[in-house]
Amino acid sequence: MFHQFRSDYIELADSRILKALAKYSLEQNIPYGFDYHTENASKYILDTFGSSKGKVFFLEGGTQTNLVFISYCLRHYEGVIAADTGHINVHESAAIEGSGYKILTVPNHNGKIIPQDILKVLESNNDVHTVKPRMIYISNSTELGTIYSKKELEELYAFAKEQNLYFFIDGARLGSALTSKENDLDKKDLGRLCDAFYVGGTKNGLLFGEALVINNPELQADFYNHIKNKGAMLAKGYALGIQFEEAFRDGLYFELASHANEMASLIIEGLKELGLKPLPSPTNQIFISFPRKISLNLIDTFGLEKWIDNEEEIVVRIVTSFSTKREDVEDLLRYIKNLL
Amino acid sequence: MFHQFRSDYIELADSRILKALAKYSLEQNIPYGFDYHTENASKYILDTFGSSKGKVFFLEGGTQTNLVFISYCLRHYEGVIAADTGHINVHESAAIEGSGYKILTVPNHNGKIIPQDILKVLESNNDVHTVKPRMIYISNSTELGTIYSKKELEELYAFAKEQNLYFFIDGARLGSALTSKENDLDKKDLGRLCDAFYVGGTKNGLLFGEALVINNPELQADFYNHIKNKGAMLAKGYALGIQFEEAFRDGLYFELASHANEMASLIIEGLKELGLKPLPSPTNQIFISFPRKISLNLIDTFGLEKWIDNEEEIVVRIVTSFSTKREDVEDLLRYIKNLL
Amino acid sequence: MFHQFRSDYIELADSRILKALAKYSLEQNIPYGFDYHTENASKYILDTFGSSKGKVFFLEGGTQTNLVFISYCLRHYEGVIAADTGHINVHESAAIEGSGYKILTVPNHNGKIIPQDILKVLESNNDVHTVKPRMIYISNSTELGTIYSKKELEELYAFAKEQNLYFFIDGARLGSALTSKENDLDKKDLGRLCDAFYVGGTKNGLLFGEALVINNPELQADFYNHIKNKGAMLAKGYALGIQFEEAFRDGLYFELASHANEMASLIIEGLKELGLKPLPSPTNQIFISFPRKISLNLIDTFGLEKWIDNEEEIVVRIVTSFSTKREDVEDLLRYIKNLL
Amino acid sequence: MFHQFRSDYIELADSRILKALAKYSLEQNIPYGFDYHTENASKYILDTFGSSKGKVFFLEGGTQTNLVFISYCLRHYEGVIAADTGHINVHESAAIEGSGYKILTVPNHNGKIIPQDILKVLESNNDVHTVKPRMIYISNSTELGTIYSKKELEELYAFAKEQNLYFFIDGARLGSALTSKENDLDKKDLGRLCDAFYVGGTKNGLLFGEALVINNPELQADFYNHIKNKGAMLAKGYALGIQFEEAFRDGLYFELASHANEMASLIIEGLKELGLKPLPSPTNQIFISFPRKISLNLIDTFGLEKWIDNEEEIVVRIVTSFSTKREDVEDLLRYIKNLL
Repeated sequence: MFHQFRSDYIELADSRILKALAKYSLEQNIPYGFDYHTENASKYILDTFGSSKGKVFFLEGGTQTNLVFISYCLRHYEGVIAADTGHINVHESAAIEGSGYKILTVPNHNGKIIPQDILKVLESNNDVHTVKPRMIYISNSTELGTIYSKKELEELYAFAKEQNLYFFIDGARLGSALTSKENDLDKKDLGRLCDAFYVGGTKNGLLFGEALVINNPELQADFYNHIKNKGAMLAKGYALGIQFEEAFRDGLYFELASHANEMASLIIEGLKELGLKPLPSPTNQIFISFPRKISLNLIDTFGLEKWIDNEEEIVVRIVTSFSTKREDVEDLLRYIKNLL
Repeated sequence: MFHQFRSDYIELADSRILKALAKYSLEQNIPYGFDYHTENASKYILDTFGSSKGKVFFLEGGTQTNLVFISYCLRHYEGVIAADTGHINVHESAAIEGSGYKILTVPNHNGKIIPQDILKVLESNNDVHTVKPRMIYISNSTELGTIYSKKELEELYAFAKEQNLYFFIDGARLGSALTSKENDLDKKDLGRLCDAFYVGGTKNGLLFGEALVINNPELQADFYNHIKNKGAMLAKGYALGIQFEEAFRDGLYFELASHANEMASLIIEGLKELGLKPLPSPTNQIFISFPRKISLNLIDTFGLEKWIDNEEEIVVRIVTSFSTKREDVEDLLRYIKNLL
Repeated sequence: MFHQFRSDYIELADSRILKALAKYSLEQNIPYGFDYHTENASKYILDTFGSSKGKVFFLEGGTQTNLVFISYCLRHYEGVIAADTGHINVHESAAIEGSGYKILTVPNHNGKIIPQDILKVLESNNDVHTVKPRMIYISNSTELGTIYSKKELEELYAFAKEQNLYFFIDGARLGSALTSKENDLDKKDLGRLCDAFYVGGTKNGLLFGEALVINNPELQADFYNHIKNKGAMLAKGYALGIQFEEAFRDGLYFELASHANEMASLIIEGLKELGLKPLPSPTNQIFISFPRKISLNLIDTFGLEKWIDNEEEIVVRIVTSFSTKREDVEDLLRYIKNLL
Repeated sequence: MFHQFRSDYIELADSRILKALAKYSLEQNIPYGFDYHTENASKYILDTFGSSKGKVFFLEGGTQTNLVFISYCLRHYEGVIAADTGHINVHESAAIEGSGYKILTVPNHNGKIIPQDILKVLESNNDVHTVKPRMIYISNSTELGTIYSKKELEELYAFAKEQNLYFFIDGARLGSALTSKENDLDKKDLGRLCDAFYVGGTKNGLLFGEALVINNPELQADFYNHIKNKGAMLAKGYALGIQFEEAFRDGLYFELASHANEMASLIIEGLKELGLKPLPSPTNQIFISFPRKISLNLIDTFGLEKWIDNEEEIVVRIVTSFSTKREDVEDLLRYIKNLL
């Protein structure tokens, strides 16, 4: 059976993560995230991302992190602005609305959003009968694998502050974004260019877990109560602490992301050599359109996800991960070549 | 001061409604809607609309009725489909999402929606990670004053049943829709072509109140508990019963609506005689675009609502009501003529 | 048929209220509560209760007012403290919890609560795994018809401030409390001894409506958005404004309450003359225990509500209202005398 | 430093659990719980507990499982009945009410509840103004370490069915209950004596995870959508599957629980030999009262939790786990002996 390129969360974890867990298997720790591993992990993360006044809260998954943070920031008459392709809008089974908060969508530009479009939403939602926009939500990298430049982030954050909106970055694939060849963000920009962001572990070689960094001190009070209230507090919080401590102690987190990106680059180069045209994506998700028959074959053989079904053609998604090997890439490219 | 054409809920109530209330002012009644006036009103309404297995529940306002009924029908992982211009989507301060339910929008065609567009929403929301569509919501008349034909309603309801979706009609302006010259619906079609609909009182000469008719017996159990739980049960429920009893005893409801439509027709004719082109609307809401300066003048003088601001031109809304008089229409037309 | 003593909301309204509505029946007003009647009513109310920084928001019913205000003040990890007999705890079909907020109960002392009991709740709810107490809710008069003295209110409010809790007074029957012979509160104490209170119209001769007075300026921002979001904004807000304008223009509100209290006093005196022992209540609700057979007879004949069923005996509730007449009281007492 | 007896979730996991995870670390699996490990684990569990029509859903923690299941079963006007000491009532930061559901409490009898008390709640919550009771929630073992006998469970379930209430068992410590010396339940009784129960992994040697078994087929539809909607779906669902597969493949789950119970028994015997009187508990939680000074010392030295502070005396909780050793018990007893 071939290596599957379905997604970046179909293998448990990098061996170093599992070894760290094994190392502390019988160590007794204070539960609920008040242990020293969690404290260490927090320090590493705040330092890495330059968040001088930030606090880190560890959660179990991406949808949960979005739900917990957005529901903390908003009142029920307030809304969050997101790309129409945003994860919270299309892939979370209405977790945000189910908790009581409206999502206001703006058109995406290769997965990204811009102030001009947001301004229109603000202009048409400005009285007592409309929802009150209160937050901008973006992902980096985006649902389409693209990334925000430093200039784009600076503009969005300046705009958000000007309009009294919170600015929140979903970093389920932040590692991939920051280690992309095209990235011009400094890691420390994350600590200064948003109210909060999260550092995805699940999609970057950890067993599970996301580290939510709340830069804005006004959004930190009672946050543990809120987490517990949403059923999102892990009893063995140190299981998250140990993983992130290991991932951020000496750069493992970025090594793993960088590897996945490198494997994706090899695939893109290979596809181009075959005369094919993958959509522009500098991270570990590749989107490419094939004739229907070929796409269905690849979906079947490599577990790819069908992204857009245009009848004649189908856009599929190819995802690399920390565990993808050079041989896996070669197998894939050879297989595609034979199909053409 | 000129008669204001701002909306159809800027005068308290038709005199017959207030007289009915005065008549029973000191009569002692069972509270919470379990009185004989409410029972009478229910019978009149079920009979008028041919709802043989229906039950009627009286509520205080339109947004409240939408909130109460939609929240009853859906689970939090389910969503309701509406026009992008739908009242629940743009004019209810996120009351639906605030209660925990996602709205899935489809493009409107003069305020109306069609099965083909809904089908696309169903196709892209069909797995465990997306919201599960469960209801279609329309308004008749629509936010743009247009109305559904019998054929259009039949197609939507057939489609809804085929797709296992509830079909709910917001009838805040149902009177105006059913007494429109262009209407081809029989009143009794309401009892057979949807799971539920409501009969708007607030916008048709009652002091306040909407009569929600639930045709589908599967959606009636514990409904009083649900109303109370949402803070929507009026202690003096008979205050609603008395009004709807009076409105439906001998046709007052439709008289009032018919009058408003007639006044609107006069305005439309008058506008056309002036060479102007109001948008097509056969009910009591008229939409028309004027040069900026004229619109602003009319907004100021007649309390019109600004609908769309296209910089050069502004679309305004002119609304007639049970209390609009022929002289008021003449004043308005004369004033506009002088502006041109 | 005898006058019914079931409750104080079984007659529509005092004639002066209905006349005021009739007077303005065709006057055109700005909707949603932004009209001059509402403004007048607000001024009268703020002045009456000495609320110098307060704002008044008019709502349709008591449960709705509790739901709207409590849900505004609390986050979902916070709770509201109430008497075990409190209206929000036992008579609102879980409207508060249904909106997402826990009620923490304390034992009642004749319907009232005291700081010592609240302190115990605070002591056992003080970590991240418990709900965070954030508000004290009382009713005046209480569910048992009793009233708070000035000293009791002062102690509760001082305690609330000391413990960083909001203090909210449900005044569904505030008129009856303030016009009770035993009352030692000044009306203006309401404006200084709580964060918010409401002035009940429904149970005191208005057609419907409650005036929520928010004394604390920190709890006023975006309150209209919140009302709309809960489906609680009346389109014809001026229908509430007109009623409260009339009720507070020249003291009608307290006249009506005073009358109901007077009728209740007559009943209590009459009962005592018959050698009976009604529970202590200085307002318009009387609670008294009779042998089972007598209670059932009275329930049947005068529409009384069964309050506590102790098998041998049944406690019933007798309620007077603005419309109870001296003859009605005499009829009741004569009837009871004959039963003994 | 001494072994800590603070709780049964202060060590990561039994070594066999971690080895199983390590074994499959790079295996590629279908995400979200649709993998073969999860399928195997489900089969083992359904078989173990005799749930012929059941389905198993794996979640991350206890509070989350309670929140997800209770919110699935109830409408917002319905309530769940629990002991006043119930975990959902006092230790979940209002997660149930925060999601919109009222908890109705009954007095506990050594942590357990009985039909007679529940009946009183039903009798006083039976109209449109009260919450509608819809579910009974118990824990086995209870918050006080006690367990339900077969007869007690049978009576509760029969009562629940008779009253049209769902019956749900929180099994955060189900292993400890079922392997208690005093237990007379057959494992297969769980599959027939309730609508649903969960099998706690977190408190019994797994890294994390709870297996929710829904016996009642009427409560299974769309459950995955609901889980996702609550932010509770683990992307790497197979991380839960692998653990429960290992725990139930050959009885490890009960071995671990049995060991913890055995250690607790040793402690109880030792305490009794010292002339002390621990509260009756046949599972891995021991409650015992000491003079204030001794309790504070033990809290400090062994990380015990303070349970009840009676000023003169303090009741502390001693908890054993899969990792507690005979020597740890001996250390504890020796230390206590020296304190006396």
